[in-house]
Amino acid sequence: MRGLFIGRFQPLHNGHISIMEAAMKDVDELVVVIGSAESSHTLKDPFTAGERMEMLLGTCRELGWGERVTVVPVRDVNRYSIWADHVLSYIPGIDVVYSNNALTAMLFREKGFEVRSTPLVDRNVLSGVRIRRMMVEGEDWEVLVPPVVVRIITELDGVRRMKELSERGDRS
Amino acid sequence: MRGLFIGRFQPLHNGHISIMEAAMKDVDELVVVIGSAESSHTLKDPFTAGERMEMLLGTCRELGWGERVTVVPVRDVNRYSIWADHVLSYIPGIDVVYSNNALTAMLFREKGFEVRSTPLVDRNVLSGVRIRRMMVEGEDWEVLVPPVVVRIITELDGVRRMKELSERGDRS
Amino acid sequence: MRGLFIGRFQPLHNGHISIMEAAMKDVDELVVVIGSAESSHTLKDPFTAGERMEMLLGTCRELGWGERVTVVPVRDVNRYSIWADHVLSYIPGIDVVYSNNALTAMLFREKGFEVRSTPLVDRNVLSGVRIRRMMVEGEDWEVLVPPVVVRIITELDGVRRMKELSERGDRS
Amino acid sequence: MRGLFIGRFQPLHNGHISIMEAAMKDVDELVVVIGSAESSHTLKDPFTAGERMEMLLGTCRELGWGERVTVVPVRDVNRYSIWADHVLSYIPGIDVVYSNNALTAMLFREKGFEVRSTPLVDRNVLSGVRIRRMMVEGEDWEVLVPPVVVRIITELDGVRRMKELSERGDRS
Amino acid sequence: MRGLFIGRFQPLHNGHISIMEAAMKDVDELVVVIGSAESSHTLKDPFTAGERMEMLLGTCRELGWGERVTVVPVRDVNRYSIWADHVLSYIPGIDVVYSNNALTAMLFREKGFEVRSTPLVDRNVLSGVRIRRMMVEGEDWEVLVPPVVVRIITELDGVRRMKELSERGDRS
Amino acid sequence: MRGLFIGRFQPLHNGHISIMEAAMKDVDELVVVIGSAESSHTLKDPFTAGERMEMLLGTCRELGWGERVTVVPVRDVNRYSIWADHVLSYIPGIDVVYSNNALTAMLFREKGFEVRSTPLVDRNVLSGVRIRRMMVEGEDWEVLVPPVVVRIITELDGVRRMKELSERGDRS
Repeated sequence: MRGLFIGRFQPLHNGHISIMEAAMKDVDELVVVIGSAESSHTLKDPFTAGERMEMLLGTCRELGWGERVTVVPVRDVNRYSIWADHVLSYIPGIDVVYSNNALTAMLFREKGFEVRSTPLVDRNVLSGVRIRRMMVEGEDWEVLVPPVVVRIITELDGVRRMKELSERGDRS
Repeated sequence: MRGLFIGRFQPLHNGHISIMEAAMKDVDELVVVIGSAESSHTLKDPFTAGERMEMLLGTCRELGWGERVTVVPVRDVNRYSIWADHVLSYIPGIDVVYSNNALTAMLFREKGFEVRSTPLVDRNVLSGVRIRRMMVEGEDWEVLVPPVVVRIITELDGVRRMKELSERGDRS
Repeated sequence: MRGLFIGRFQPLHNGHISIMEAAMKDVDELVVVIGSAESSHTLKDPFTAGERMEMLLGTCRELGWGERVTVVPVRDVNRYSIWADHVLSYIPGIDVVYSNNALTAMLFREKGFEVRSTPLVDRNVLSGVRIRRMMVEGEDWEVLVPPVVVRIITELDGVRRMKELSERGDRS
Repeated sequence: MRGLFIGRFQPLHNGHISIMEAAMKDVDELVVVIGSAESSHTLKDPFTAGERMEMLLGTCRELGWGERVTVVPVRDVNRYSIWADHVLSYIPGIDVVYSNNALTAMLFREKGFEVRSTPLVDRNVLSGVRIRRMMVEGEDWEVLVPPVVVRIITELDGVRRMKELSERGDRS
Repeated sequence: MRGLFIGRFQPLHNGHISIMEAAMKDVDELVVVIGSAESSHTLKDPFTAGERMEMLLGTCRELGWGERVTVVPVRDVNRYSIWADHVLSYIPGIDVVYSNNALTAMLFREKGFEVRSTPLVDRNVLSGVRIRRMMVEGEDWEVLVPPVVVRIITELDGVRRMKELSERGDRS
Repeated sequence: MRGLFIGRFQPLHNGHISIMEAAMKDVDELVVVIGSAESSHTLKDPFTAGERMEMLLGTCRELGWGERVTVVPVRDVNRYSIWADHVLSYIPGIDVVYSNNALTAMLFREKGFEVRSTPLVDRNVLSGVRIRRMMVEGEDWEVLVPPVVVRIITELDGVRRMKELSERGDRS
């Protein structure tokens, strides 16, 4: 059985890992789609698809999931009526979708897929938006993401990128 | 004489009907353009072009306008300098534009078209944004739209779609 | 019951009319999609979506089909894996597809639709490509299309457009 | 030596002129890119690329820079990871980039370009956003832009355009 | 060290495998990009990105390369001046490019990458265009592709798809 | 008075110069649009917009036209019904169009512009397609283009680029 899990992974954090762990108990293989693949260098989407792919591949390898996880970057189409079809045309066939996102769940259910909710993660603690804010404000975000992600963001000087983006204050 | 009326129809409501009634007194035929045709499944644009077309076709038939109204879905191009030309290339030739929207009026006037304002409708009572909010908050929106629209939205469980969209609170 | 018929209608000709006549015996309503809506001013696609819509609306009115036919221009997406979904998102719900085109038939069958072939029309006599060539070469194309189409093409000086296009011989 | 200066020029104002003056002391030629070239008729981007090009060409001629400045309109691609490459593919080769914008500076530095900051201009006084607000509110914006720009905006009735846009209050 | 190999894989054949085998001797990891990912259902590009991904993942697993190969579908942009940057933004960092295609080699060399040619494969025998023609004409193509690919194409009735496409003879 | 001249300039050759010379006798200023700006690295469109801009700017300077000519790269939209509007939105206002191309002439005439044909140039001798073929085949193309163009193509090793492109023979 093959499952699908979609996220933006800006950055990959422990909330994503919990969902993937839960999914990996049910399925043989997991297709992980990097959504909004074309976006980067903004406060909401700081990292490129390539950088996010490194986070996912490195972490999956560390967790011993290398062979069972396939990571696929997919750009947005901003037409929700065909968005699920768009995603499906880029990936191997799947049996079930994992998602806690209401819109993703709605769109795949409308296409007839089973969508499973995953065990609760406290989204007030573990969410991309909170982690990005912590990075900009100099708080301790490192414990909320896998070690590989800390290393990658450090190497590409990602926190400085985010701080510069937060200061641009475009008044042109 | 042929007129043009452009709206997003999210959903078709009695304010649109008043404008169309006024226009139908002047013209032989009315081309009704469904704007932002590609948008759906958001709080601002919950319904697909196909669903909105059903609302318009069903209502026009009920009002006996079937032969005189042509409905054309047109996607956005987000380049206002060529937007009027974009719309015009998809529709039969027109003589006059009906609109209470300042931007639409400006863009068609710049291309040399006559733009007629329509008898006042109280936009505090009859506006798409208010009706969508009433749907989400469980208020009585049904009296503000034609009966066909109530039936279509009920059949496709549209109020539940809107409530789910309002809860998604994306913090990824 | 509602049927779907897709064509480019460059121009609308008697072969299209035969297929529509056959379809109208089975269904209550027919959605006619003008494909490649964005294309015009080439030898393969000489007429704009608006011009083709005039041909279809005028002819359907003449044949007394006005209330039962809905004409919808749809641009190409050039991604066949999602093309049927793209078309479906722009139109009211349909039950059956009419087509003699192998690709259209394949793509809608893959989505689970019934696709009906229509009684044979001799494509050596009645095809868009042949009629367009006759226009350029000054032969008698007029008997192969409905009278409304002759009138529209005459009014917009369509044959001259095609002749000019055939002479452009771009060597830039 | 050739420099690059990128702005939206909505409208061209004296802050831009200061930066260009500073740049013209270092370089033989300056390529001025009009960003977001496809945007117009909004409160943030009221003027078309053509109108902005007239502002720049007219002003540069007046300042005696005609031969040394090349103006190039470039549409947005909204993919920052390739945005600098996109701009570079449309312009002659450059040696240095002038910018006070953090994002532009970051993206060109990542591609290995030298990015020079320019002598401080008080952005509370001289910024596009402030000038556009002054136009809408009927304040004296004319002293903040070159004389050619006053003339062009007057000729195209630009202040009325902006006031109408500010009143559209879309509640559809 | 990480290498990049780009192909359309319509379908994956033994010529691709030879190149990958040669590359795997040099590098620790190989990123395999599925080009023209959005194309399918044509004689030149019969298979979807998802179907091609199944071919690659299945074959790599069989060859024991599962952990060392990452497959990434990338759509075309049809702007060769930024095409290499487009591809690079979707993938993890790479050190070397493997290609026998002159255009790919040129575009990556212009960006400063080392491009390695691979040991000769007889392209008169092993090329996508020949294998697709053999499929349509009912010849023995199966020996020219890995066993997993034979199985996948059989399961999705791919040869029938190709034959139907070859017969469509669009004369609309 | 301001004129418009549109070409692809692959490469700029003496035929273009003749047309520009004729136009410069009538008008005060000439806007030269580089069409298909996004295309490059193909046999039909070997040079990038930036490279073609260098050819035009350098040649105009040499001919003493620097102040009177404005060069604007414009990408294709492949929708001829709005193509003229698309071009016009990117350039300063124009009074007359110079063109020997039938399609360009048709599209601007349909928008109400005067289109002037220019004194005959022998297109069998002076055409882009012939010059590009001479480059690939090693013939003497240099006398057919301005000296600046010879220098630029030599510097960027343009003939080698074209020869490599002609050999790619894609059989993937």
